[in-house]
Amino acid sequence: MALENGKPSLASTAADASVMQSQSLDECLKVELSPAAWPEVQRVLQGLNQGAPVEELAHTPWPNNMPQDLNIQKYAFRAAPEQLRPRRSVRIGLVQNAIVAPTTAPFAEQSKALLRRMHEIADAAGVASVNILCLQEAWTMPFAFCTRERRWCEFAEPVEGGASTRMLQALALRHNMVIVSPILERDETHGETLWNTAVIIGNKGNIIGKHRKNHIPRVGDFNESTYYLEGNTGHPVFQTAFGRIAVNICYGRHHPLNWLAFGLNGAEIVFNPSATVGALSEPMWGVEARCAAIANGYYVGAINRVGTEVFPNAFTSGDGRPAHKDFGHFYGSSYVSAPDASRTPYMPRDEDGLLIADLDLNLCRQIRDQWGFRMTARLELYAELLARASRPDFEPQIIRDPAL
Amino acid sequence: MALENGKPSLASTAADASVMQSQSLDECLKVELSPAAWPEVQRVLQGLNQGAPVEELAHTPWPNNMPQDLNIQKYAFRAAPEQLRPRRSVRIGLVQNAIVAPTTAPFAEQSKALLRRMHEIADAAGVASVNILCLQEAWTMPFAFCTRERRWCEFAEPVEGGASTRMLQALALRHNMVIVSPILERDETHGETLWNTAVIIGNKGNIIGKHRKNHIPRVGDFNESTYYLEGNTGHPVFQTAFGRIAVNICYGRHHPLNWLAFGLNGAEIVFNPSATVGALSEPMWGVEARCAAIANGYYVGAINRVGTEVFPNAFTSGDGRPAHKDFGHFYGSSYVSAPDASRTPYMPRDEDGLLIADLDLNLCRQIRDQWGFRMTARLELYAELLARASRPDFEPQIIRDPAL
Repeated sequence: MALENGKPSLASTAADASVMQSQSLDECLKVELSPAAWPEVQRVLQGLNQGAPVEELAHTPWPNNMPQDLNIQKYAFRAAPEQLRPRRSVRIGLVQNAIVAPTTAPFAEQSKALLRRMHEIADAAGVASVNILCLQEAWTMPFAFCTRERRWCEFAEPVEGGASTRMLQALALRHNMVIVSPILERDETHGETLWNTAVIIGNKGNIIGKHRKNHIPRVGDFNESTYYLEGNTGHPVFQTAFGRIAVNICYGRHHPLNWLAFGLNGAEIVFNPSATVGALSEPMWGVEARCAAIANGYYVGAINRVGTEVFPNAFTSGDGRPAHKDFGHFYGSSYVSAPDASRTPYMPRDEDGLLIADLDLNLCRQIRDQWGFRMTARLELYAELLARASRPDFEPQIIRDPAL
Repeated sequence: MALENGKPSLASTAADASVMQSQSLDECLKVELSPAAWPEVQRVLQGLNQGAPVEELAHTPWPNNMPQDLNIQKYAFRAAPEQLRPRRSVRIGLVQNAIVAPTTAPFAEQSKALLRRMHEIADAAGVASVNILCLQEAWTMPFAFCTRERRWCEFAEPVEGGASTRMLQALALRHNMVIVSPILERDETHGETLWNTAVIIGNKGNIIGKHRKNHIPRVGDFNESTYYLEGNTGHPVFQTAFGRIAVNICYGRHHPLNWLAFGLNGAEIVFNPSATVGALSEPMWGVEARCAAIANGYYVGAINRVGTEVFPNAFTSGDGRPAHKDFGHFYGSSYVSAPDASRTPYMPRDEDGLLIADLDLNLCRQIRDQWGFRMTARLELYAELLARASRPDFEPQIIRDPAL
């Protein structure tokens, strides 16, 4: 476990980030399995897109002024040709990254270092012709909610005029790129309260809107309800120049209803910017976002940060362990999942990375037509049940064995 | 592909049932991976239960009069000890099996062969002290709905007094065992219509009730809506002598709302008796039932039949392929998934099997307390949305980029 004082070095976390000595689960399987077994394992674990594994595209080497310490992976999801609609391909980019300066550095230095880093990553995504870029949850700061210390609130910014938003607006305009920017929001018009918010920046550099995280965890070190409450922006879908997108922030991925709502409102791509650690959630990571893509007939881009963040003061986790300073390892493993149950391999567990994927959006309707999940959904049945289940006097439908 | 005329022999399907030359995905990984890599891959793919892989129990060899051609696997899921509640352990059994007589045999012969087979399997489960046994979907017949031929309706039975139910009632009483028996139901009091129904038989041999499949597929060869419509029994949870159970039949596993409803009504174990083939759904198989267990805080027992069923007359699949006689390979792979994201390995892809699992039901509430999904579910928000989305004049929440 990386406990170097305050230093979020990636190298120092490699020991616990990779028991497998591979960058990811998929990489490990590909290396270790026999040539006969790998394709069959890949078929079951990663699914097939148009009858084959999701196609990996070659990555053209960067110009020298682009970041060389970024793991770049590139894939393409295909759809069947249609006779009455043209292909609708959009290139998305998912960013996973570690914090740059240690958490002990002055806040201005931490903030500046992260902005500089994201500037070069977003520039790189622009050069790679990404149409829609999504950054990780609360990317402008360390994920300090474990500490319950109020001073980290300083990292909050208003949606309009905040330093991170202004920087990304310029980059969006320069690269003709939609950017989804999840930040800690300072709501100045409502008593300066905080929200966990994704800002949606259009490809003309304008702010299209925002979405506030709907479901807030109270799990282990995820003491986020200390800082902000459940979002009040519903389940907006943003009609951008490159398709209809939505954002399911972090813990919302555990809520099938949250995923469903974005689908009902017409999303074709849902981003899931997250911050989650290995001991807690890794076996769930490949299951939930993927299930949502299948059930709702849209693409999901799942993002998790990387690295171990070590804080200045020790904190407890409500699990009887002694007070400690680190949050555990954010295991990266970002991936894209499609409505046909295919997915990309996972990004590395311990490297900054940019996952680029070309999505043919026609696949969404094709799979809905094929599987018929929406047609057979019986929403009115569930509207009625949820209304009843919300009431204090709810009586569950239980049939008791009369022989008991 | 096994196309031997009418013969559902397991041996004949092995060629396509196992490219991996292992019985299951998990078996293949365990055999092929290095001793260093396997535990880490297992941790991510199968999860951990109380900090370790789901415990495998030794299977005591059967007496000679028990079926020797049944793959038996046995596991135990643990929960943390509590101070105010005793441990609540229940032993469940999942049955996956091929049909016995060829589909060309006289119906009485096919039926008798299946009843005889299930009699010996249920007896074996009783000897193994199973408390709740669940059989596969429409276990009393071949999965003939691909044919659209009406003559297969002969296999339908009323809930009360049907041959399969009477046989299982006697076995339930003999072994003090709850049995979930999914059949094609003939509803004699409503114009002799058909339903896809699970009969719940109590451990005293009484019929506790029934559940009719809520969501009916129109996918490829799954022409089930030709035979029966969406169920009208809601989402009942059955309070049995051994815990609160529910049944999500086959295609209902693709509907997160269906899973949710059984959870809201208080299920601790949800069985998912299925019939599904490899080319269609295998990459989804490990995702959906598992996601449901995690999201709803209950155990799921997912069951799929095995073997390739070849029918007397050729039929088309609505995909441009020539008419053919087989449905593809039912790939077995039954498994149990727990609320803590752990699961058993998959059962074989091509062998009859009985998967036995000891479940500590206390785990359900422990995980709900830990993760808080129910507390943070905001049901009233979704009740309102689903009511709106059900109406013809629904207006999705779409925020359009004003720069477009």
